[in-house]
Amino acid sequence: MLPIICIVGASDSGKTTFLEKLIPELGARGYRVGAIKHDAHGFEMDQEGKDTWKLRRAGAGVIAISSPNLFASIRGTEGEMSLEEIGARFFWTEDILIAEGFKRAHFPKIEIFRSVVEPKPICGPGDNLIAVVSDDEVDTPVSRFSFADWRGVADLIENRYLKGRKKRKMIVQLDGKQLPMKDFVEDFVLGGIKGMLSSLRGWEKPGTISIQIRLGEND
Amino acid sequence: MLPIICIVGASDSGKTTFLEKLIPELGARGYRVGAIKHDAHGFEMDQEGKDTWKLRRAGAGVIAISSPNLFASIRGTEGEMSLEEIGARFFWTEDILIAEGFKRAHFPKIEIFRSVVEPKPICGPGDNLIAVVSDDEVDTPVSRFSFADWRGVADLIENRYLKGRKKRKMIVQLDGKQLPMKDFVEDFVLGGIKGMLSSLRGWEKPGTISIQIRLGEND
Repeated sequence: MLPIICIVGASDSGKTTFLEKLIPELGARGYRVGAIKHDAHGFEMDQEGKDTWKLRRAGAGVIAISSPNLFASIRGTEGEMSLEEIGARFFWTEDILIAEGFKRAHFPKIEIFRSVVEPKPICGPGDNLIAVVSDDEVDTPVSRFSFADWRGVADLIENRYLKGRKKRKMIVQLDGKQLPMKDFVEDFVLGGIKGMLSSLRGWEKPGTISIQIRLGEND
Repeated sequence: MLPIICIVGASDSGKTTFLEKLIPELGARGYRVGAIKHDAHGFEMDQEGKDTWKLRRAGAGVIAISSPNLFASIRGTEGEMSLEEIGARFFWTEDILIAEGFKRAHFPKIEIFRSVVEPKPICGPGDNLIAVVSDDEVDTPVSRFSFADWRGVADLIENRYLKGRKKRKMIVQLDGKQLPMKDFVEDFVLGGIKGMLSSLRGWEKPGTISIQIRLGEND
């Protein structure tokens, strides 16, 4: 599963501005970076009157628009998908997912803090906080980086979550929730699947295998 | 695999207007309808200056925005994904995918035709055309429906592609391309996968199973 890091902080603390430095830094180091933003208030991605908007209004639950260089999809949801499911379904090509917001998720967090905006950091020790980015003195048990030290933050992320990471070869999700698996179990299941599929016509040493199963009442 | 139907026709022939009738009709019959539009000229889904736009400009290859009722993702691509891959990856919850445009795809097509816009239909017999929607006389070997007869078109789609369709329980893709499988092979592979996974801790009779595998050089 790809590592997910949440960048949290009070609104107007400078999260997006910091990400505009951090993301290119990680990109320059050769990592494919995905980003997700949380919007508690809903949002309108497609504009009123446009064709995609008309198709959604007509009742299409999922719409997409495809062009040679860009692909976009919009999906009506009942409640939010988990970051795990979002990561696996939509960021399958990326090496890391940087989430802006999502304070309540259990993933490692970096807080962006400015004392002029908020009296004290919004994350405590129970929040899986790994660093604070701030130019103010902050009473925190984790490392503090200045706003200008996005390279230091990139080092931290790279060393802890990207370098030497044993890339999981296989992710299994049951109803969108990841099934944890020890290495030897992963090897066993993966070997079994590969063994079955590789005997079929159409098998040609693929780089990726994707399997989607929908079980009925009696399965 | 979910059925995919392409609605084609000259620009300004009335494709979107017809879809605004057809999609609600299929929805009223209980089908979950996804829609995709082709845009040859590229498009801008996120607006300049917005946070998501900033994250993309900063180098995020995939961005997403999540709210309680709506989820959107934007992905930079090198060349377009195939409709098959798009269908499997982004429309996994839907019963049918209606594609506006995509004349060159090999899926069944319905042409929207108005003689004031174009002298003759753009699809010929080799294009997998299954119907023409037009209020003009058209010389075509397939059925013609008037613009007001979206129910007739919905009947055609339902009878041919939705009703009594044996729902595939399993879709296997190798590098994004679907691996064709006979029923008994599907049963065999699915049984093998279920057998292995169901012995693991964490298995609780799921409704869906998703498996993503990334193979290395030596696998």
